[in-house]
Amino acid sequence: MASDAAGLRPNLQPDVALAGRLFGELRERSFDGVGITREAYGPGERMAHALARREAEALGLEVSVDPVGNLHMTLPGADRTAKRVLLGSHLDSVPNGGNFDGAAGVLAGLAAVAGLRRAGFAPARDITVIATRAEEAGAWFPTSYPGSRGALGRLKPEELQVLRQDTGRSLAEHMREEGFDPNFAARGEAVVTPANTAAFLELHIEQGPVLDAEAVPVGIVTGIPGSRRLRQGRVLGEYNHSGGTPRRFRRDAAMALAELAVALDEEWARLETLGHRLVCTFCTLATTAEAGFTKIPGEATFMLDVRSVNPASVDAVFAEIARQVPAIEARRGVRFELGPETGSLASPMDAGIRHSLAEAATALGIPYLEMASGGGHDAAAFAAAGIPSAMLFVRNQNGSHNPHEAMRMEDFAAGCAVVTRWLSRVAG
Amino acid sequence: MASDAAGLRPNLQPDVALAGRLFGELRERSFDGVGITREAYGPGERMAHALARREAEALGLEVSVDPVGNLHMTLPGADRTAKRVLLGSHLDSVPNGGNFDGAAGVLAGLAAVAGLRRAGFAPARDITVIATRAEEAGAWFPTSYPGSRGALGRLKPEELQVLRQDTGRSLAEHMREEGFDPNFAARGEAVVTPANTAAFLELHIEQGPVLDAEAVPVGIVTGIPGSRRLRQGRVLGEYNHSGGTPRRFRRDAAMALAELAVALDEEWARLETLGHRLVCTFCTLATTAEAGFTKIPGEATFMLDVRSVNPASVDAVFAEIARQVPAIEARRGVRFELGPETGSLASPMDAGIRHSLAEAATALGIPYLEMASGGGHDAAAFAAAGIPSAMLFVRNQNGSHNPHEAMRMEDFAAGCAVVTRWLSRVAG
Repeated sequence: MASDAAGLRPNLQPDVALAGRLFGELRERSFDGVGITREAYGPGERMAHALARREAEALGLEVSVDPVGNLHMTLPGADRTAKRVLLGSHLDSVPNGGNFDGAAGVLAGLAAVAGLRRAGFAPARDITVIATRAEEAGAWFPTSYPGSRGALGRLKPEELQVLRQDTGRSLAEHMREEGFDPNFAARGEAVVTPANTAAFLELHIEQGPVLDAEAVPVGIVTGIPGSRRLRQGRVLGEYNHSGGTPRRFRRDAAMALAELAVALDEEWARLETLGHRLVCTFCTLATTAEAGFTKIPGEATFMLDVRSVNPASVDAVFAEIARQVPAIEARRGVRFELGPETGSLASPMDAGIRHSLAEAATALGIPYLEMASGGGHDAAAFAAAGIPSAMLFVRNQNGSHNPHEAMRMEDFAAGCAVVTRWLSRVAG
Repeated sequence: MASDAAGLRPNLQPDVALAGRLFGELRERSFDGVGITREAYGPGERMAHALARREAEALGLEVSVDPVGNLHMTLPGADRTAKRVLLGSHLDSVPNGGNFDGAAGVLAGLAAVAGLRRAGFAPARDITVIATRAEEAGAWFPTSYPGSRGALGRLKPEELQVLRQDTGRSLAEHMREEGFDPNFAARGEAVVTPANTAAFLELHIEQGPVLDAEAVPVGIVTGIPGSRRLRQGRVLGEYNHSGGTPRRFRRDAAMALAELAVALDEEWARLETLGHRLVCTFCTLATTAEAGFTKIPGEATFMLDVRSVNPASVDAVFAEIARQVPAIEARRGVRFELGPETGSLASPMDAGIRHSLAEAATALGIPYLEMASGGGHDAAAFAAAGIPSAMLFVRNQNGSHNPHEAMRMEDFAAGCAVVTRWLSRVAG
């Protein structure tokens, strides 16, 4: 078989048709009447894992399920002792979500491996497509990446006790119910380690509008942002008659919150002019049920989500909160209760893999953009465990986490082509 | 009997004890477990009217109920054809409200008339204490002063079709159910007119903190503010992923609303420095149920209430809305839907009655403040009908429309003393 200038077979084509068929089947089997629902450690995710397993077996891959339920589908390499190449994503979805968030990464892995097999490509090392569990932590279990972190031996015992938001039952219970071993990670065991894994690559829809706006099909991710979050923020003032209470006697919780929101938005704009890249979102901002016509709001609540690949950018927003809050409190006679802070560390993506992905895209004539991720992804967990990790974004329309998620198959094919070429290099 | 320098009997004392007893009975019979609830054209108001009627009959007053349900309790004057003096307020309350808003004015009328009777005072003209119906329009029927405006022949037929907010049934239905004639006013008839009424006086708790802060027991009201109101304001943007959507791609409805709120608040502050007196309140300001963590808010709603005795001050705020809205829409890619505007005209209080009230307070050594009303009151309806009208505020604590409404009986007594002396002048 002839090789191209880079020493690679020119006919290494991902089996995009296979992925297209599986997207259709997944959609059909997880449409809930409004959107796509694949519950983490529940029936929807179980269905999707069974479907992926069936395809992997049909492709002749080695299939195993790790103790916390992640599915490993391996094209064996010549040297079974060499560090494997891992690629994949998750198969759960948010409730009433879309078909592509997560699934695209697993099906891209299968399409790439199927293409390699079809071309008779024999990898030097194992290539494992992984379908992780329960990545949509915000929707089901309020903890980050329990599936991948379980495989990595980094899931803490106390995290097993978080409750699934719809069932009210714990992660440990749901894991056990699906036939898995919640205590695996707690025992310090791991199936994926830097010692046995050379690289992790996750293809994912972008979730944002940047690639679409820039008319570029794929993005090479520079890093996954860290975050600082206030999910239970409150402002306490005093309910009073809106007609009878002059300005100087007011303790208006809603105006105090509006003022903080505008101040942080201005700080965000200022930081961007200084070169910072971050996002700062009041996901909710609201007077409460007691508010009503002719009353000055005595209480308001908010959820704040600040993210950046650069922790200093996130910290700059929180420094502004620390400056603004006492000033607004003094001026408006209110009290802020910021509540517990949650968050995550930023994960820079591996420079070596990013470089290889860029080379692959260039060789294929596929335009790409280097960009930070907006959301969090399993790749952050692999990176945190010391495994060189990277992400490839695929242009999509209408964002994600909603029924209107859209990704053109030609863009997905471009992403798969980059993945396939990259695999043939790192496992060739 | 000796007279004082002003030609009045020195022992004209209101029967504050009678009012105190009735406040207690009202509280006991309308406490709902949280606060006071006296439903307009419903059981709570019916109970309070029956109680007032019983007391009026015990005092030997002439009692009648007009076709829309207002209770008239008359101490007959020597000349039954002379224009009467009218005083009173309403007996309904907001749900979970306080005991004093409204009731204080009716009980002050009874206390004053009982005091006049006890002193053997024979008025030259009729003195009628009126207990109106359904003044708490914001809480029950979304129309202004249907009780007093019904008696004044100024209730429009279409207003009879507004629905009570808890029962979903119309004002006309509720009136009929209580035994009244909703079409009375629609036929152009009136029981209270400038031709038969010389003056209307309403004593009311202040509802705001001004008298308490200034340590003054009573206020003589200069005017009742007019208002312009947006009760169904909306801002429409686009829900997007809070991580994946950079600043320039956002259409954040909540930030747009926060920006409008802060801009109007700044305009209010600016207007005050120019001498305007007004209030500007976002009574609600909120993301909607679809909002949630990791989403940029695609929708927000608000209720805005702007009031002033001076229409130009209210209009200045609305001019600022007209300036801000298109600018914010352009900047943030959102659309404001201000919705229908409601409102009322400002009602200046009668200069002659204000002067007489000031004289009465001065003669009694009772400090008073001249002040604008914050809220709307039945007195606005009487003034709009061409009847010389005035209000006397009584200092209270904890605002109004809440279970913590508080008014000291010594302040109420001071107010009743001013009312009694004023009555003895205008009906003497």
